[in-house]
Amino acid sequence: MRFDHRHLLGIEPLRPDEITTILDLAEQYVRFNRGRDKHANALAGLTQINMFFENSTRTQASFELAGKRLGADVMNMSMQASSVKKGETLIDTALTLNAMHPDLLVVRHPHSGAVDLLAQKVNCAVLNAGDGRHEHPTQALLDALTIRRAKGRLHRLTIAICGDIAHSRVARSNLLLLHKMENRIRLIGPETLMPTGIEDFGAEVFADMREGLKGADVVMMLRLQKERMDGGFIPSEREYYHRFGLDAEKLSHAAPDAIVMHPGPMNRGVEIDGTLADDINRSVIQDQVEMGVAVRMAAMDLLARNLRARPSEVMA
Amino acid sequence: MRFDHRHLLGIEPLRPDEITTILDLAEQYVRFNRGRDKHANALAGLTQINMFFENSTRTQASFELAGKRLGADVMNMSMQASSVKKGETLIDTALTLNAMHPDLLVVRHPHSGAVDLLAQKVNCAVLNAGDGRHEHPTQALLDALTIRRAKGRLHRLTIAICGDIAHSRVARSNLLLLHKMENRIRLIGPETLMPTGIEDFGAEVFADMREGLKGADVVMMLRLQKERMDGGFIPSEREYYHRFGLDAEKLSHAAPDAIVMHPGPMNRGVEIDGTLADDINRSVIQDQVEMGVAVRMAAMDLLARNLRARPSEVMA
Amino acid sequence: MRFDHRHLLGIEPLRPDEITTILDLAEQYVRFNRGRDKHANALAGLTQINMFFENSTRTQASFELAGKRLGADVMNMSMQASSVKKGETLIDTALTLNAMHPDLLVVRHPHSGAVDLLAQKVNCAVLNAGDGRHEHPTQALLDALTIRRAKGRLHRLTIAICGDIAHSRVARSNLLLLHKMENRIRLIGPETLMPTGIEDFGAEVFADMREGLKGADVVMMLRLQKERMDGGFIPSEREYYHRFGLDAEKLSHAAPDAIVMHPGPMNRGVEIDGTLADDINRSVIQDQVEMGVAVRMAAMDLLARNLRARPSEVMA
Repeated sequence: MRFDHRHLLGIEPLRPDEITTILDLAEQYVRFNRGRDKHANALAGLTQINMFFENSTRTQASFELAGKRLGADVMNMSMQASSVKKGETLIDTALTLNAMHPDLLVVRHPHSGAVDLLAQKVNCAVLNAGDGRHEHPTQALLDALTIRRAKGRLHRLTIAICGDIAHSRVARSNLLLLHKMENRIRLIGPETLMPTGIEDFGAEVFADMREGLKGADVVMMLRLQKERMDGGFIPSEREYYHRFGLDAEKLSHAAPDAIVMHPGPMNRGVEIDGTLADDINRSVIQDQVEMGVAVRMAAMDLLARNLRARPSEVMA
Repeated sequence: MRFDHRHLLGIEPLRPDEITTILDLAEQYVRFNRGRDKHANALAGLTQINMFFENSTRTQASFELAGKRLGADVMNMSMQASSVKKGETLIDTALTLNAMHPDLLVVRHPHSGAVDLLAQKVNCAVLNAGDGRHEHPTQALLDALTIRRAKGRLHRLTIAICGDIAHSRVARSNLLLLHKMENRIRLIGPETLMPTGIEDFGAEVFADMREGLKGADVVMMLRLQKERMDGGFIPSEREYYHRFGLDAEKLSHAAPDAIVMHPGPMNRGVEIDGTLADDINRSVIQDQVEMGVAVRMAAMDLLARNLRARPSEVMA
Repeated sequence: MRFDHRHLLGIEPLRPDEITTILDLAEQYVRFNRGRDKHANALAGLTQINMFFENSTRTQASFELAGKRLGADVMNMSMQASSVKKGETLIDTALTLNAMHPDLLVVRHPHSGAVDLLAQKVNCAVLNAGDGRHEHPTQALLDALTIRRAKGRLHRLTIAICGDIAHSRVARSNLLLLHKMENRIRLIGPETLMPTGIEDFGAEVFADMREGLKGADVVMMLRLQKERMDGGFIPSEREYYHRFGLDAEKLSHAAPDAIVMHPGPMNRGVEIDGTLADDINRSVIQDQVEMGVAVRMAAMDLLARNLRARPSEVMA
């Protein structure tokens, strides 16, 4: 089992065997979380701080549970209500936290690159819980685990990612991961929400859902950021649903056993038909949430092993 | 000791012997909480999630302390700031949480029946921490324990519940519990705050405090929801206090050893005279808070025993 | 090792040997926090409640980490969102909390004296985390530890405190502590921000930075409360920085090995030049944060020892 990183800042720096290492360990934590006694000691003695500069009840909860179940002392800092408002810079906030000697720092920030910057200033392991349009590595990992469990493999699959590709860190991290694992990736969405030059990345681009979904093994829907509406990107929710919302008819163009994914929270009737989202034969949306806790436990466990392998900073 | 439920959704489904079982175990936790070492392992290995769709510092704190003292991994989710705001439905939120495999889910929700609905969608034990005007079972249980300790018994007492009966889940759960335990119940309040047909329930209804309090062993005041004012229900705080606020004179009509209760937080000088609220010979208001933690520990302990008795959901 | 107090309400009641006791124990916790396994049991079985009536992410985080690392069950109550808003008085809130049997209560409140008042109403140990303009004892203690570590001693030093002296509990607690430890104290700031009669306290007062800093061993900057601006106290940030902001030139008047302190969060370019704040040869600002966690662990540990030495309140 090898995982040679101090931080988990993105999918980009990970090797395929490192991704497999995380997923394999996460698989064990899936079983662990389904048991009745779900408290372990992998992070005992360590301090985990969750620092969310953007609200995200679900991702923060997932990291918090992961840390508590592994025995860490977990602290949430709601950075909206904090000294950031008092004019403190991100770096000062980072240095302040660092002086409290956390071991694991989970950070979400609205600016791309902010988490990388912060990681350079601290002594602890940093986990990126989403930074701007850049990366959201644990989301891509949990999606990968969900796919691997449903499809029995994580390579040579045809995977369609649909929606607001341009602004989505979820799409970006998934694209990186699925590409590394040698899958065939299709990006589907309105031209206004498609980044330019994305074809160079090895993905095929479609503006038509039925065409893009043809024969797909996995259909990954993205959340529509409502703030994109009326900003010239999207005419209306209704129009969006008509063209890009996933329903049974559009899904019929994918492979007969295609699975349906969504990172949540869903806008039913906008990105996806509610009945389809609840169809346990097609939708693995709840599995994604379950895999989320397990993947975060695995990532923190691996980072903690690397931490413990380094000499600690005890000084007089 | 028998308690045959998977959830604690209300007082309604409980048998008298089950109520006694909870109170007897809570009695042990009262002693435990008064000691110096107040950390146990009854919930060790389990995950408790507190999900409050309505603010309630005091009830949430009581459940949080109860869970932490029993060794659970406790997580608070502030649902005001959450994906609910992003348009997610209650059911989606419930399914999302369920996928994280909590064992105990404590829920407060502004809509009557929302907690029951949620309980049908999840695999864990659900505790109702107040839903709309429906039920608030742990409040009724803590009130029952307070009465039993003060009066030496929980039957054949004359108990007056005073105030906004119509909108109060506290009144409703208390009425159910005290009726099951064979007490004589009197409801006192303005006609505009009295539900129609309540007499069928076996309670006597009064619009006059002095008459309703005559010979009462227990005087249970309710919190006045300020939003009822100017809504046609109540003319003014001053007028309300004059007619229905508890003071020494009105209390003199009750039994000489009558106790005074209030679920808190109090509006001094509106529902109750401040001096009377602080009179430790009459007021058991602080005892109610103390019993609250103990009763919640007992309820979660019993639900956890039932959980552990069921086969866990370990799957491949 | 002697520390004869039930509460830590301020520096005022502490003897010099008690201050030394806290700092000596904190020194051990500094080492502990720098190690990899930073979870102990000094507060195991105890309940710590943090009750912040004023926002303070950094101080609350420091107390929360301190308690969790020492094994307490820690609960944060955000009092802004609480029953205080529902009209409950401070005393009622205190009595309610007290009924939940906390062992350690950490309180911040905007009114001077509020924490003392609250301490009279509860059975547990109370730690003042800042009350109005009155005291902020753990800040003074962490500053003292920082000075002692940097200077090798905590007496016969020349210490300049600069800024808004009049409204600062940080200044007041530091003044009390440093005076008890027999240091020479200088207060520097605009006349409008200098309390009258402060000279009687044994401190020298300066309105000119260069004069006040002459030969100082320690330069302690205060945070500028922006709400003082335009209130007649300060003309503008720019003007303030020109006269009282610390930069390399002004610092050159202090002793060549003078250290620079700031309680944070900093307004760079207002109270202090950013480059100077980051100069690890002069600035001990990050050390202050580190010492903060250690000092709070020490204070809570000592209070808990005193708690355990008293008979507990077990009753039938």
